Amino acid sequence: MERGYLHSRFPALFFFLALLLTSPAISTKSVRGIQPCRSLVLFFHDIIYNGKNAANATSAIVAAPPWANRTILAPMMNFGDIVVFDDPVTLDNNLHSPPVGRAQGLYLYDSKTIFTAWLAFSLVLNSTDYKGTINLVGADPLMNLTRDISVVGGTGDFFMTRGIATLMTDAIEGVVYFRLRLDIKLYECY
Amino acid sequence: MERGYLHSRFPALFFFLALLLTSPAISTKSVRGIQPCRSLVLFFHDIIYNGKNAANATSAIVAAPPWANRTILAPMMNFGDIVVFDDPVTLDNNLHSPPVGRAQGLYLYDSKTIFTAWLAFSLVLNSTDYKGTINLVGADPLMNLTRDISVVGGTGDFFMTRGIATLMTDAIEGVVYFRLRLDIKLYECY
Amino acid sequence: MERGYLHSRFPALFFFLALLLTSPAISTKSVRGIQPCRSLVLFFHDIIYNGKNAANATSAIVAAPPWANRTILAPMMNFGDIVVFDDPVTLDNNLHSPPVGRAQGLYLYDSKTIFTAWLAFSLVLNSTDYKGTINLVGADPLMNLTRDISVVGGTGDFFMTRGIATLMTDAIEGVVYFRLRLDIKLYECY
Repeated sequence: MERGYLHSRFPALFFFLALLLTSPAISTKSVRGIQPCRSLVLFFHDIIYNGKNAANATSAIVAAPPWANRTILAPMMNFGDIVVFDDPVTLDNNLHSPPVGRAQGLYLYDSKTIFTAWLAFSLVLNSTDYKGTINLVGADPLMNLTRDISVVGGTGDFFMTRGIATLMTDAIEGVVYFRLRLDIKLYECY
Repeated sequence: MERGYLHSRFPALFFFLALLLTSPAISTKSVRGIQPCRSLVLFFHDIIYNGKNAANATSAIVAAPPWANRTILAPMMNFGDIVVFDDPVTLDNNLHSPPVGRAQGLYLYDSKTIFTAWLAFSLVLNSTDYKGTINLVGADPLMNLTRDISVVGGTGDFFMTRGIATLMTDAIEGVVYFRLRLDIKLYECY
Repeated sequence: MERGYLHSRFPALFFFLALLLTSPAISTKSVRGIQPCRSLVLFFHDIIYNGKNAANATSAIVAAPPWANRTILAPMMNFGDIVVFDDPVTLDNNLHSPPVGRAQGLYLYDSKTIFTAWLAFSLVLNSTDYKGTINLVGADPLMNLTRDISVVGGTGDFFMTRGIATLMTDAIEGVVYFRLRLDIKLYECY
């Protein structure tokens, strides 16, 4: 009896210990099919330079197709414009709320027939809640109500994370200001 | 006897259940060393703007080094040119086949001594077979028969995917048209 | 007794085998919370074109904001400049050491008030020790002693890898030359 009892425990226990010792994968990384391991909602605010707003502008056109210049967005859906940005990031939709970080990188417009953009940037967060960066890449078809881009990595509090950011245009004022809402869902957390 | 039998089952069963409940990683994510969990072959077609083909062009030089302009590819292996593109994606090598999506983003030439490029773009797929985006980044040494770049993320049907895309130059016509074949092998599928 | 013994072994063994057969994840991918599965230290050397050093320059400003040109870094912390580079990569801090590869891609400056950059590039390694590419993306706040960016993928010896690269400015000479030290720690290896 005792022998059966002991032997019965051994394989499972051994296996459990072996797993803990050799595959921290299971304990340190949580990948959950549907449920994100972490979620955050952020807003970022983009004020593009238009030749007159040097003091307030947070972004500027730095590259344009041969038929356009860098002060006015290009004809044909802004096709070919590359914009470098350093946009304040807030927890609500108020441009004047205390920023929790910056969104820094580039976006570009890449269709002559519909408004569509492509983004590659970092969220550089530095608040009491979040310290670290989240790196994002993806297509942003602006006319869709929601658009998904990829979280491809992170550092600090977001060490090695992956996930999806759902973008929504929260406001747009002429060609100078837009506000994006980011619903970030992280599915790989360490 | 019964006690040994019951106890013998318990640890393993408990462990198995615990694993199912706390680590969906194992059931929802399949990472297979050698075998991709999904493969697709796509072609994309790039017609670069050269000052005369505005109607057909699917891409344009938007940035160039100080010694070059944006209408003609730069001297010294196009070094420094950044091209923004919105290229049709097809399932075969025919430019006129019905597109299953677009390849959108940028490529740049980054050597003065050999033809080599660097790509960062999204495949935005919208067909009966595929709906979603695949985000790619990597070096493209054009003179090699095949070149591997990274699939760093995806959305929709390609939610959170990772993998490798092998690029082959399928055709090249002067400096205006090229066609790339992409053999995409995804090794992380959700 | 024997029945208890046999039954006690079965569930754990079956489970262990099932795991081996259906989840190569555990055996082919090692994710270790704290310990990297691979580490490497590399240096890269950037000599930016300034109108006079065409022969030596390894990088060039290819895009700039409307208020700047492409020969001199832009006023206000270089904000808006995009630089394309093809920088030699060495194993020590000597520019003249035999290169083990190239760092190729782009960096941009994205703040008007502090020196901060953003990088997206590939390490294209071709030496006896390393053959393959490592793809990196992230924010580089230059004034910090160390900065972390994401390794988002790799090919060849670095197939599908992920991790963190810690950047340190190892030297800086005027506005023409800088040397970065990269401490790369890979936490996902295949």
